[in-house]
Amino acid sequence: MPIRDKRDELAEILLEAAALLRDNKDCELYIVNVSDSDPNAVWVTELWSSQDAHAASLEGADTSELLKRGRPLIAGAEPLKLKPLGGKGF
Amino acid sequence: MPIRDKRDELAEILLEAAALLRDNKDCELYIVNVSDSDPNAVWVTELWSSQDAHAASLEGADTSELLKRGRPLIAGAEPLKLKPLGGKGF
Repeated sequence: MPIRDKRDELAEILLEAAALLRDNKDCELYIVNVSDSDPNAVWVTELWSSQDAHAASLEGADTSELLKRGRPLIAGAEPLKLKPLGGKGF
Repeated sequence: MPIRDKRDELAEILLEAAALLRDNKDCELYIVNVSDSDPNAVWVTELWSSQDAHAASLEGADTSELLKRGRPLIAGAEPLKLKPLGGKGF
């Protein structure tokens, strides 16, 4: 959840993070979403091959730089951990 | 949200729905998820080219049959409508 009026700035940083992940084979989805019903929220839909792969992705220097820029814009986060059973698109 | 103890049965029906959508070019994602933190919930991550395309997909005879089988298993639903700004995987 971004700090009031910082949604778009945070979304831009998250889109930069998505670009960094382009060649990461463990990251199948990293979609930055907004919601009409909550103009102050940013949702990121992520799908990773494993939790370890996700954790490792946070270690890189360029990711740390993005985190440093993004953290001050974040008022709170509500991670929702799901397990895909199957379906289409991944 | 499925009726207590009907999660897996509902998830199977939703996976059948995903299979029906395999050749639907307007449906980019239809992922059936469960959550360790809520053993009675099923989450479906969907991504469509448009709301109209999604609505049209509910019209087919085979979809109606699945809906008929699935509805009695559903205690409630909390749709969360998001707009993807960009990212990876779609």
